This record gives sequence, C-alpha cells and structure tokens, in this order.
Amino acid sequence: MRESAGKPRIIVIGAGFGGLFAVRALRQVDADITLVDKNNYHLFQPLLYQVATAGLAPSDIAWPIRSILNRQANVTVLLNRVSAIDKNSQRVQIEDGQLDYDYLVVATGVRHSYFGNEGWEATAPGLKNIEDATAIRRKLLLAFERAEMSDDENERRRLLTFVIVGAGPTGVELAGAIAELARNTLVRDFRRIDPGSARILLVEAGTRVLATFAEDLSDYTAKTLQRLGVEILLGQAVTHCDSRGIIVDDKSIPAATVLWAAGVVASAAGDWLGCATDRAGRVMVNDDLSIPGANNIFVIGDTAAVFDEQGKPVPGIAPAAKQQGRYVAARIAARIAGEESNNRFRYQHAGNLATVGRKSAVIEFPLLKMRGLLAWWIWGVAHIYFLIGVRSPVLIAWNWFWQYLTYGRGARLITGLNRKDSKAPD
Amino acid sequence: MRESAGKPRIIVIGAGFGGLFAVRALRQVDADITLVDKNNYHLFQPLLYQVATAGLAPSDIAWPIRSILNRQANVTVLLNRVSAIDKNSQRVQIEDGQLDYDYLVVATGVRHSYFGNEGWEATAPGLKNIEDATAIRRKLLLAFERAEMSDDENERRRLLTFVIVGAGPTGVELAGAIAELARNTLVRDFRRIDPGSARILLVEAGTRVLATFAEDLSDYTAKTLQRLGVEILLGQAVTHCDSRGIIVDDKSIPAATVLWAAGVVASAAGDWLGCATDRAGRVMVNDDLSIPGANNIFVIGDTAAVFDEQGKPVPGIAPAAKQQGRYVAARIAARIAGEESNNRFRYQHAGNLATVGRKSAVIEFPLLKMRGLLAWWIWGVAHIYFLIGVRSPVLIAWNWFWQYLTYGRGARLITGLNRKDSKAPD
Repeated sequence: MRESAGKPRIIVIGAGFGGLFAVRALRQVDADITLVDKNNYHLFQPLLYQVATAGLAPSDIAWPIRSILNRQANVTVLLNRVSAIDKNSQRVQIEDGQLDYDYLVVATGVRHSYFGNEGWEATAPGLKNIEDATAIRRKLLLAFERAEMSDDENERRRLLTFVIVGAGPTGVELAGAIAELARNTLVRDFRRIDPGSARILLVEAGTRVLATFAEDLSDYTAKTLQRLGVEILLGQAVTHCDSRGIIVDDKSIPAATVLWAAGVVASAAGDWLGCATDRAGRVMVNDDLSIPGANNIFVIGDTAAVFDEQGKPVPGIAPAAKQQGRYVAARIAARIAGEESNNRFRYQHAGNLATVGRKSAVIEFPLLKMRGLLAWWIWGVAHIYFLIGVRSPVLIAWNWFWQYLTYGRGARLITGLNRKDSKAPD
Repeated sequence: MRESAGKPRIIVIGAGFGGLFAVRALRQVDADITLVDKNNYHLFQPLLYQVATAGLAPSDIAWPIRSILNRQANVTVLLNRVSAIDKNSQRVQIEDGQLDYDYLVVATGVRHSYFGNEGWEATAPGLKNIEDATAIRRKLLLAFERAEMSDDENERRRLLTFVIVGAGPTGVELAGAIAELARNTLVRDFRRIDPGSARILLVEAGTRVLATFAEDLSDYTAKTLQRLGVEILLGQAVTHCDSRGIIVDDKSIPAATVLWAAGVVASAAGDWLGCATDRAGRVMVNDDLSIPGANNIFVIGDTAAVFDEQGKPVPGIAPAAKQQGRYVAARIAARIAGEESNNRFRYQHAGNLATVGRKSAVIEFPLLKMRGLLAWWIWGVAHIYFLIGVRSPVLIAWNWFWQYLTYGRGARLITGLNRKDSKAPD
C-alpha cells in the first residue's frame, strides 16, 4: 500500500453498524482512516428477512460504503478480505497487500452457528448477508414451484413444509413473513396446489419465543403467529437435519425447507488477535473495549463480549454496535489529541423491537411496552428513520405502502437459475 | 403430468413479450393453456442495461409470471426447461416430465452470438438475462475497486478501460450509462484513482452507430456519446479477445472489461422442431408464423425469421414480438372455434427508440424523428407506460426521478462475492 503522510493511521475492519459509525464519528479527526470490508456495501441487517421473503430487493437495504462516505475526505475504503493481524508490527494482512496502523478497530460481526453440527448449513441456511437472503428466497419460492410440478402427495407435503429453527427476532420475523407469503401473496398463483395449506413450523429449544422480551410480549407474539398459521414447538431441540427434513425430539418431520435462526458465532477476530473469547467466539474486551495487552486495538459490535455496569451482557443489536463505534471513535480522537480519559463504555439500552407479520409488532422500551398495529407502525417509522442516508427513505416507504395495499411482494424473483455454475438446490 | 379435461391443449414456451402476450390474448378461450419458462419471471428487457449499470434493481424490471397471470384461470405456469419437441406424438419434453399439446407456440428468444468465437463469452459477457446483468454490474464495479487497490499505472489503465463491442441500441445504451457512471456517479467515491479518467470505447464493425435508425439520428447519437466521453471506433472488427483485452484491426487494446453487444443467435427452437433456419438460427416460418409441415406449431418473436409485406425483415424488438403473440393467439382461437382464415401476419412498425445517457434519446416514428431531452422524456414515459402491470410504475418513476436529481445509482451492489462456489472474476 502507499505511504502514509505522517498522520495517525486508523484501520477499521468491517462496515456494519459498529465500523461505519466509528468511521463517521472520526470525520473531524486529522488522521488517515482506512475502512476495509469484504463487501462493497453496508447492509441494513434488521430488514434482511424482508429480502429473504421477497418483500424488498437487495438494493433496498444495502448501500455502497463508498457513497455513504464519499464526502468524508479522511477515509479510504478498500474492498478486501483480512487474513491476519500482526500486533507486534502493527500490521493488517489483506488479500492484496498489508496495511500499517496506529489504531485498529475490529468490527467484523458474526456468522450463524450450528453448535458443532456445521454440516447442517448445507440444508439449513442462516441469514446474515445478501447472498444468504437471495439463496433463502430462491429456496422458498422453488419449494412452491416444485410442489406445483409434483404428482406425489407425500412429496408435495414435504415441499410445502417450512421449518424455522430458533424463535428469536429473526426466527419470529421469518416465520411471520413466510406465513403471509403462503397465505396471502401466493394464494392465487398456483393451479394444482393450495399455497395456503403450507405448514410453517417454528422450533425453539427454549421455553418461549422472543426470550429477551417481557413474558407477556412473548405470549402475545406466540398467539399472533398462531393466528397467522404458524405452529410453534417450544422446549424441543433439533437433533438431526438433512435434505429430507429434521428430527425434533425423536420425531421426524419431512421438510424441504429448513432455515436456521438458532445461534451465531463471532467472526475470526479472536484468532487474528490471539485473544481469549467466550463460548460464542466473542473477544473478551476491557471495559474501554480495547483488548488486554494492546490499548490501541478495539473490538466492537457483535464480535465483542461487552457487559453493562450491572454486569449484564450487552445484546447483539444495531444500537449497541453504533454506541460502541461512537465510543471508540471518541477514545481514539482523544488519544490523538493527547488527552487521556478513563471513562469506561456505558451502554444505553434503547429497546427491543420485532415484527410479527405485516400488521403487528412488539416493542419494549425502558418505560413502555407495546404490541399490535400501532407498534407495527412505530416499528416501520423507526426503521425508515434509521434508513436515512442509506437508501431514499421515501422509496422504501412507498414500496412498503404499496405492498401493504396490494399484498404484493415485488421482489419475488428466483435468481441464480441461469448461472453456468449453478446446481439445482434441494 | 396430469390429465387434460378434454379441452384443447395449448402450450406456450417462453414468457417473454411474445409468449406472454399470446397467453393473455387467449384469456377468453376455453382451453387448457400451459406456459413453460425456465425462469419464474417475465423480464422487461429494454431496461436490462439499467440493471447492468447499477441504475435499477433486478426486481424493478422483472415480475413473477405467476403474479401477472394469476387471475387468468385457463393458464398453468410451469417453471421448467424444455429439452425436446416430438412433432409426431405432439409432445414437449421437459426436465420433469412431458406435456401433450394440440397447439404449440414457441417463443424462446435469442442468446448472444460470438460468430464462431464462442470462447470469447468468458471474457466478453453479453446481456440477455438477470444473471448476465448482475454479472456485468459486478465486473464493472470490481474494475474500479481493483484500480483503487493497484499501484501499477499500466494495470490501473487496463482496469479503467471499458470496451463495448457492437453499436446497436444495447451497445449505445451501455456505453452512455457506463460513461455517466464513471464521470458522474462515482466521481467522489475513490481516493487514489479518478473514475472520470476511465476510457470507454464503443467498437462497431459497421459504418455507423444505430444502423437501423436514420442517418442523422446516428450522427446525433455519435456526437452525444462523444460529448459524454465515449470513443467510437467505426468500421473496425474485433479479431481477438481474452482476459488481457482485445485486438481491433491488429491494434491491441488492454482492457479488463469487454462487453458484447454485437450479435444474437436464436435459441434451440430450430433444432427442436427440425426446421430450416436462417444464418442467425431463426426458424423460417410461413406467413402465418406456423412452421412448414405443421400448421398447429407457431414460432414467434426473436426466434422466428419474419418478413413484412415489402419483404423486409421484421426487427427483433418487443412490439414485434407482442404483435406476433396476439396474432397467433387469434389464429388459434379461430381454429378452436372452427373458423378458418387466411390472413397472413402483418407487422405494424411503431418506431425505434434508444437512450443516449441520462438526458438524451433518439426516436424514430413513421411520421416523426426526434432527438435530445424531449425525446428522452418521451422515451421515459413510454417505458413507464409499458411497465404497467409489471411493477408499480409510480415506484419506477420515482426511482428514476430520484436518480435524475441525485446522480445516484442506488443499485450499485457487488453481489455474489460471498457465494461459496464463487471464483473471483477477472
């Protein structure tokens, strides 16, 4: 890479909420900032389930990193993969070279975890990036197409059975959206099958859905999902999973589509840095988010195991990552300015949100709990507000409104079928 | 496949403009219609270049066939590939079975042709389907990303050289859109390279651009492209093409991105039907669009070699395919009703349209030629009008207007990088 101009060099790895907000908060600092990401876009992950269920197009929720930052002159964006970090020589190894740093921020997020059954990934994809979402969309839509072609009643049943493993917000949102896709959007589209007869199962090893929410909101969510036609299996763990279906508590359920929303594991940051991690692979950071033994290296967002002042773990949600990004930016800026402070990171919990289908949501703010249609509107407005600067919010708003009116799902494309290297999925 | 209910069975292969309009025109007919396509969407091909150059998202111009036809009860849509046609037993062989027909309409379109140099396809992709468009988009955007990473001046030059082969409407539209992407949209996005310095070459073996338009419109188009910074090489044929670049008239031009818009060849319909074809592989049809020896089989759209009453070939454009679709539908309906007519197909030429960048177009109606900004607006309104029933036209209109105001190109995503089977493109 080319030479630095003598200014402090800051490298940020990952352009999710944590990395992006760190970079933005450094805009006034006289430094050479390099933001490295393996993709060219920032992804608005809270709406990824909408792409997977054909409600939004990928470009509705992903925005080129370069265009978000093109007016911030102290940043260089690189599309590249990180392969190693050398703490001694203060150097990041990337595919196409190496980068020297004075300060390093690692915000590389998580991948789904199969708790030792990584072989299940081939049949039970998780939802973390755009390719995951379009692959799930293809899998969902192809299941209906194949059912329409099939003459065999059992096979048709299997094709029309959709299993979602894990009833956190992603699992709940996927289950609700798939139920509405089958019962409303596709209802007139087929001649031989009734898409409305699709069986949608939400399997959860714990004792309730949305375990991080208050109990009455869990109950409300479960009832709303059941009204949409989702079957909920609680306290039941998946013990096997292959292309025929799943086994739950010794009961075999034939299903062509199994989606994984049961757990995540942090990216390779712990390995790169040679740091202690928790069971989910998250780096055990100091209370200023730096790592033990290197106070110029920070790990933030889902990649870090962070605790609030009461010792409760900080959740892996976008607002937490943003706060951490802003915090480390301020800390680095102070250090560059020669100030030293000992303020630890303090997490402000803004609330929990989840949608249940297209007319209902649950919201839990510190002083307010809400559910139902009004909560759904607040959820929608909040997300449109968060999207400002990402994509034209009017466009998204219009798109949703149009869908809401028409029950349409405009992004119902099966792509990837014409790829020369494509194999027919299961 | 399941049994027919005794009604006449009509099979339509291909849900492009020809096939879709044939099916729609048969909506009042008491028949069992089956529409087979290898994709689940109808593609609005005239705007495909906008997806390839990051202006529109795939779902802006493609719409599920099922949702277009979901209120037409006499049609069954099948997502499947045709592999053969048996004229004697009146049967179409598809991947997952076979279908019997009384009437058959073949509307399977074209693929790009490399005139015997099919090996060039790997380096010089053409633009016919959604996967082509997202692959071209990835190739274009990655060239800028790699140039930003490169320290070698020659390599950076090569990465910032874009060659479009063929100056028909697709080539002209691609060249104009790439020039504006480089000179306007990306202008602030990079730190080490100047995207505005990109070299865009439009290579044409013939003597002018837009050869099917009037000469003064060709001249105007060439001048407008040059003003956008496109170099035009006329009367020069590409004699070699590989990952390093192209050779044109013994002159080697290093270029990382070469796009092919030079020619097309009809799909395999001629082989399936055992019919005579012209040099471009199009089936030589009778003047009622049936094939010699089988008056219940029709070939329409780009797949057929059709001539107007003056003996001039009918162009391979959407309005021609739509007219042919409607014509064969009427003919089949009359046959089913026991009427027999001898009206030959009569082509009505509506006009030629092409855009040159984002502020200019050329239009050639039978009684009117136009060019410039007003022509661009007419082009835009015409396309929005044609899109009715495909996607929310207000959404498209808003999207364009937003882009027009902001010079933004919202769909600037590089997708496919996270695919497990993906190889880094050249």
